[in-house]
Formats: sequence, C-alpha cells, structure tokens
Amino acid sequence: MLTIDKIFHAQKVLEEAIYKTDVIRADKLADDCELWLKTENLQKTGSFKIRGAYYKISQLSPEEKKRGVIACSAGNHAQGVALAAAKNGIQALICLPEGAPISKVEATRGYGAEICLVPGVYDDAYKRALALQKERGYTFIHPFDDDAVIAGQGTIGLEILSQLKNVDAVIVPIGGGGLISGVSFAIKSLNPNVKVYGVQAEGAPGMLNALRDDKIKALASVSTVADGIAVKQPGEHTFCYCKQFVDGVVTVNDDEIASAILALIEREKIVAEGAGAVPLAAVLAGKFPELKGKKVCCLVSGGNIDVTIMNRVITRGLTTSGRQCTLNIELLDKPGQLVEVSRIIADCGANVTGVHHEHAGAGSAVIGCFLRIDMETRNFEHIAKITRKLNEAGFRIC
Amino acid sequence: MLTIDKIFHAQKVLEEAIYKTDVIRADKLADDCELWLKTENLQKTGSFKIRGAYYKISQLSPEEKKRGVIACSAGNHAQGVALAAAKNGIQALICLPEGAPISKVEATRGYGAEICLVPGVYDDAYKRALALQKERGYTFIHPFDDDAVIAGQGTIGLEILSQLKNVDAVIVPIGGGGLISGVSFAIKSLNPNVKVYGVQAEGAPGMLNALRDDKIKALASVSTVADGIAVKQPGEHTFCYCKQFVDGVVTVNDDEIASAILALIEREKIVAEGAGAVPLAAVLAGKFPELKGKKVCCLVSGGNIDVTIMNRVITRGLTTSGRQCTLNIELLDKPGQLVEVSRIIADCGANVTGVHHEHAGAGSAVIGCFLRIDMETRNFEHIAKITRKLNEAGFRIC
Repeated sequence: MLTIDKIFHAQKVLEEAIYKTDVIRADKLADDCELWLKTENLQKTGSFKIRGAYYKISQLSPEEKKRGVIACSAGNHAQGVALAAAKNGIQALICLPEGAPISKVEATRGYGAEICLVPGVYDDAYKRALALQKERGYTFIHPFDDDAVIAGQGTIGLEILSQLKNVDAVIVPIGGGGLISGVSFAIKSLNPNVKVYGVQAEGAPGMLNALRDDKIKALASVSTVADGIAVKQPGEHTFCYCKQFVDGVVTVNDDEIASAILALIEREKIVAEGAGAVPLAAVLAGKFPELKGKKVCCLVSGGNIDVTIMNRVITRGLTTSGRQCTLNIELLDKPGQLVEVSRIIADCGANVTGVHHEHAGAGSAVIGCFLRIDMETRNFEHIAKITRKLNEAGFRIC
Repeated sequence: MLTIDKIFHAQKVLEEAIYKTDVIRADKLADDCELWLKTENLQKTGSFKIRGAYYKISQLSPEEKKRGVIACSAGNHAQGVALAAAKNGIQALICLPEGAPISKVEATRGYGAEICLVPGVYDDAYKRALALQKERGYTFIHPFDDDAVIAGQGTIGLEILSQLKNVDAVIVPIGGGGLISGVSFAIKSLNPNVKVYGVQAEGAPGMLNALRDDKIKALASVSTVADGIAVKQPGEHTFCYCKQFVDGVVTVNDDEIASAILALIEREKIVAEGAGAVPLAAVLAGKFPELKGKKVCCLVSGGNIDVTIMNRVITRGLTTSGRQCTLNIELLDKPGQLVEVSRIIADCGANVTGVHHEHAGAGSAVIGCFLRIDMETRNFEHIAKITRKLNEAGFRIC
C-alpha cells in the first residue's frame, strides 16, 4: 500500500544518494503560461529511475540484499538499478536484449552491474530474467509496478511542491505509469488543487487506452522515438493510481517530440531524451489550452538519448519547423544553370549547406539533370518565397 | 579602475536581471579530481555576456540611456546587449556582418534590438558601428575591454566562491579576456589561494602570446570551432588583469573541444558551445596534471551552438573516440562478398549504420569495387579487431 508517509520516508532515504534536481524557468519556450522544467535529466544516471530503484533496494531484507537483485531493461531502469545496487553494496544482474545500444550496455556495466545479453528481443530478456531470478534467488526489481519503486519516484512530487510555490499544474510522461503514479499521489495528497496531467507517445498509448476502456490491455506493438515510454502494457497498481489521481492524459507524435527536444537544446541548453520531452511537446503543440496563464511544471524525466538519434531528431526538428529545407530542382543540362539557381537562393538570404548535382534517371528527359540543394532557411514563408522566385525564373521544383 | 566593490555592486544590480546559475557536480567526467561545472550556458541569453552588458548599461547616465547603445557582434555579446538594453528600457542597435548565422540574427532581433546587417566581414561591421556611434551619439558597448563589463562578468567569481566552499581552482575560457579578468579579479581579491587558469583555442591564442611576449599583438587570422573566443587581439585592460591575476594559460585543439562538447551532452545532458567547453576540454586532455585530487570548477560560459555545427561536432567526437568508424573495403565484383563482410562485422558486435557500394574509380583494377561501411563501435580496440578479422578473410581495407 502506497502512503504519503512512505514517500516522505523515501525522500529521507534518498537524501544522500541522489541530487535534488533544479527547476529552471523556461521563459523562452512559452509565452502564454509561466513554464518551468524539473530537470531529472540532470539526475544521476541521467534519469529519475535511480530514485525508485534505490528506495526499493534500500528496503530489502539483509537476506535479500545478500542474494542480490535482477532487472530486465535496455534503458534507464538498467542504469538506475545498477547504480542503486552499487551504492547499497549489493550485486545486480541486468538482462538486456542482445541488440541493445552499445552505449547503454557500456553505461550499465560502468555502474558495476553484471550484464547478461540475451539473444532476441525484450520479451526474451524478460523471460530469461525471471528464470534466473528463480534459479538464483535474486529479487526482481520491477521498472514501475511496485509500490516501493513508485514511492521513490513520488519524491519528485514533493520536490516540485517545495521548489515551485503556487504551481498550478504538473505534466508528467507516462510509459508504464510508475513515475506519474508516485508524483500524482504525492501532489494530490498534499495539495489536491494542483492538477497532474500525463503525456504518452501516440505510438504507445497503453495507459490512455486503459483509462478510456477502464481495462488494461496489452498493445500488439509500440512505435515511438520516445523509447523510454514505449511500454506495451501499463501496470496494475499504476493503472489504479492513474484512475484516482491523474486529471487527464494526452498524446504527442514523433514530430512534436522532435520539435520539443530541439527546443530544449536550442533555447534551454539541456538534453532530453524522447520520453523526457513529451510533456513539453504537449505544451508546445497546444494540447493544454486550459493552462493558459497558469504556472506549469513539465517534468523532464531523462536525458539518455543516443547521440546518433539526437542528430536525426535535430535534422527532423529543423525540417518540420521550416528552418532547413531540401529542394530538388530540374535543370537543363547546359552551362550557367547552377549559377542562376545559386544567385536566386543567395538573394533570398538562405544559406546553402549541401549541393548534389546529377543526371536524370530513367523517368526524365534525356537532356535534363537534377540539382538537390540543402539549405538553412528562416521559416516556411521564407521557403515559399525561394520556391516562388525559382519558379518565376523558369525552374521546376520536383 | 576595477575594484572588488564594483563587482559586489554589479552583483547587487544584477540580482533581479539574471539567474544565479547552478554549479553541478560532474563526477562522471573525471575520476582524478572533484570536478564541478558552473553552468552559465543555462544563463539568460544562453551565455554569461548578459552580466557585463547589463551592468554596463545600468551605469549609463540618463542622457546616455536616452540616446541608446550600439554594439558589434554576431554572437553572445549581441544577445546580451539586446536583452540588457530591453530590460533597462533603452534602444539597442546591433551591427552584424551580413553572413551571420540566421539563428543568431533572429535571436538578437527577438530580444528587441534593431539589427543593422553590414556587407562584408566582422571588421566591416565594426567600422560601421563606430561610424553610427559618432553619427547618432550611441554609447558603444565593448564586448570585453571595459571595466564595467568586466565587473559584471566578475560576479561569476563571487558566485563560485559562495557555491563551492574550498574550491582549489577555477578554469575559464579566454577570448578577449573580459570573462577571466572579472572572475580572476574577484577570486584573487577574496581568496588568493584559489588558482585561476585560462584556456584558449589553439587557433586563436592571442592572450597566451601576449602573456608570453609581454606585448599585445593582433593575430593575422583565427581559426577554431569555438567561435565565441575566436578573437584576434586581446584587450589592453584585460591583458593587464591576466598578467596580474591568472595563474596560467593553456590551449586546446578542435578535436579536444569536440570531445568535450560530446562528453557534456552524453554524460551531463547539457549543451555547451565550443567556447564554453574549452575548460573541460583542457581537463579531459590532461593539460592540468597539477589539479589531480583537487576540487576544480570549469566555467561553462555559454551554450549557443548552432545545431548544424553540433551535429558535426557529435560525429567528429564519436569518430575521434573510436565509437564510430568508416571502413573502405575493396571487394572483388562477384556475388557473396557483401554477405561475408556483413557477417564478420556482425560477429564482432558492431552496429552498421550506413552502406555505400560502388564500382572502382580510374585508379583501380577494372573488376574491383568498393564498399564503404559506417558503423558504431565500442572503441579503437574494437575497430582494430574488426579490421584484423576482415584482413584475415582476405579483404583489403583502403
């Protein structure tokens, strides 16, 4: 049974193990509400998961501690459990699917955990973890559906209330629901007037569906750039807490998430992973009209984004906001055409970043060729102007 | 004349205008010293420049304020002056060279400044700013060689001393020298035992040269990824302060800077621009062996990095740390070769991210073709192992 006392106890236990992360004012991101960010991406291990894992592990019996813990995760939970176990001086074994990103495997190993790479996908690693648990007597640390874990995550709610006087609403990512269960329980227990909203990825709306149908059902598949909340089935405990304490759940798509990640990098100079950016994505996409003029806190839950993905997200975010664009221009294969196109683009004030010039493929006139130009632009009007000028000069944009 | 009282006064004046930025513990970055980061990249406008600009402008006479201010910058100083002027309710005109990045021009305009785009390079914009200053009676806000500006930057030194008890050393970027002049003056005035070191870009070592030769000389050219400290000539005031208060200056190259930017993104989840990353770059590159075991604070001076540059920096950082690699493999133009190469790479546990297959150019055997494979790797030993396995199977790496 979760109680507010348990969350206060978790706060006391966590005091020496974690950072009390800052809330920062994000006045550059939203002008129609007073926006704050709770920066759990700056937490140890780069995400909030250390809170729940540490508190759970600290509450094990001496006997359980001696046998050690096991978890199955390719992400933040793995690192949280690994560091929490190390800090409690006990053994941790983490099962990961073999194809897990090298950087995450290395980070988990770096915190001192033993790694078990399991052939197959997540479900295979999960089965292996359960088998190993039985075989060797480890305690299984569930990533979200566990009251001690939820109490640990709930300490974020306590911190937000103490850091942001008179906050009107707190917006929290939802995957399995552990984070929002703890945060909403803490906040509603202490101040029921503060709203708590959840945000899921459009491609992984397990909790949203469960709340709508009043029934938990596993999704057949999940697909989202926010891998931290790509959960097929919400927990049973977490479902109950969400029903009771969460004021509403919305979803965001990958483009909205990419724009939010980019906004955090460019305007706030912090790195969020997809899951950590969904609350802001929902605010920026106008999913909470009721929060106009309010004091709002978005929980940036983690920052463990693969830099290769980050590169792609940035590119995508620039494109969907009209700040980068690629034009395919059909040219006649005669001298002077490249000069003319370049001049028009320069006159419009765009900055060319890439040029690719090639002869036409099977579907085009024999004498044609194509020019692909990548450029930095100001916005969509700017792109429209460039396109218009090129059209006026007789160039066809494909 | 700079005095510690002036810096305390600046601190009082700045209280309502800026953030007292956090110092964060960076225990994941260095294991041989106790490393802290002063996060001025999270400051308003994304850099420390607002401090000096705001204090300078606040100290103008009512008459001067009425006429307004002018500055010449394509970077952080422009944004600092623009916001500082807006907050003081006065007009700012910023001259920028025409080729300045669109994002920086828009950001400066966004803070309410009038923009004057000058054809040519920085020097042309500077001349135009001086002409306009005379013509219209604006006050020119120098980016670094001004005691009021230096006093504003010095407030960072006061904050570090109050935030980090018993700090042994503070490491500061140097371009024109305004930041380190203020910080070292403040620190040495209050606690001469704390060391203050400067870091310059290898391609822009103006202050290092001046200290070595005891004479200021303009560099013919500067070249570095750290555009915020790409300064040809240090200031006269700042040179005097550096001579008196700075314990040493080192340089770092672009690869070291790229690695530091990447480390801050991946390990600390914060975004630094090149100039902001040079202190950490110097620590990571082992330029301060004397700081082993000490409590060290790196000043992350700013975070305004163009995301396109950031993409390139990340790629470069991954390559120079052995975590990404491209192999050009010569194949015989016969079936099954691609299968064989792919199998060897997969067996070694590397993750292929790109494949480019093409027939050989003029210099090679007619029947040959090339396979370019991009992959994610663990480190240089991992790459060496893959190369060896490919060689053993008869493939030639070009």
